[in-house]
Amino acid sequence: MAHITLPEGLPGITGPLAFRPETAKPLRALAELLLRGPNTLSSAEREIIATYTSSQNDCHFCQTSHGAAAAHHLGGPSELAGNLLRIAEIKRDFESAPISAKLKALLNIAGHVQQGGKRVTTEDIARARTEGATDTEIHDTVLIAAAFSMYNRYVDGLATWAPQDEEAYIPMGARMAQQGYVDAPQPNRMPRSEAVTV
Amino acid sequence: MAHITLPEGLPGITGPLAFRPETAKPLRALAELLLRGPNTLSSAEREIIATYTSSQNDCHFCQTSHGAAAAHHLGGPSELAGNLLRIAEIKRDFESAPISAKLKALLNIAGHVQQGGKRVTTEDIARARTEGATDTEIHDTVLIAAAFSMYNRYVDGLATWAPQDEEAYIPMGARMAQQGYVDAPQPNRMPRSEAVTV
Repeated sequence: MAHITLPEGLPGITGPLAFRPETAKPLRALAELLLRGPNTLSSAEREIIATYTSSQNDCHFCQTSHGAAAAHHLGGPSELAGNLLRIAEIKRDFESAPISAKLKALLNIAGHVQQGGKRVTTEDIARARTEGATDTEIHDTVLIAAAFSMYNRYVDGLATWAPQDEEAYIPMGARMAQQGYVDAPQPNRMPRSEAVTV
Repeated sequence: MAHITLPEGLPGITGPLAFRPETAKPLRALAELLLRGPNTLSSAEREIIATYTSSQNDCHFCQTSHGAAAAHHLGGPSELAGNLLRIAEIKRDFESAPISAKLKALLNIAGHVQQGGKRVTTEDIARARTEGATDTEIHDTVLIAAAFSMYNRYVDGLATWAPQDEEAYIPMGARMAQQGYVDAPQPNRMPRSEAVTV
């Protein structure tokens, strides 16, 4: 049960966002910009950074929903299962996963930001530059990892409800990838009893 | 030296905010709402929650600037020195500091959010309710502590420059308290050589 009384049937962050629409506005705008705004990093890469940070923070809702969004960005329905497995591999051990050397270097930075800002070293930054990362890409990686250190704490600090079954997150991830985080035309409402079949 | 090339002379978060105006907008709007928006918690109380979280994250710029803002909210110039000492006392040991039992209960929640969302217990929440905290106050405390876990990581994850001398933060704290976080009419620019005399 959540620590405060939240609107029924809204999983994870969507409960507190509906509870407090004033703060939801900048929180949604920030996610939209960071994950879907114009960028030299693809939305798939940025969702992977968000997913990895959320997994390091042990936030079930965020890592599963953003992992599903990343998988949707990576390819069509026929590739979805393979891409979900790829995301799981990145979360487990990104250094040996089949991703670019640049994304590995950025995930290394994100992992250090998750531990604390001062954990980011000049060596971490030098590695990212060697792999071709720009100042803006390094900035955005730090801010995505910092922002998800906020979203993860918001979701778990209020003990929000979230479906446990990964399948429930597949249509949610599709909406996040295709419609984004601002003014979603259809809410993510999920009756608890039907969560796994949505 | 900062990890990326930031505009000169802008301390702490103001450097990366100027570097990336797109993301600055929701980041500033969120701080404004959380710390100065309409609320049953005073701005002093909310700045104290931000300051305490930042001190637990060992972020020098954020804890000193928001500590100065809190001191400005607590009283006029003649009380400033005493209020700065009070903030230092809260950071050191809030449980024995001369603040309300409700604020102590909220700082206890904030400290647990800083460690990780799952560290917040039903006992933490029950204590806050016993001391009169509402659902919205608990929500806002969790979100302030989560948001400063982001701002702190953003500031330190990019290794931004910040003056070390606490006096340099007094006029900055006054501007934060009086003018707020959005569209500040005068920038916080500080020539490095004069930082302590600004």
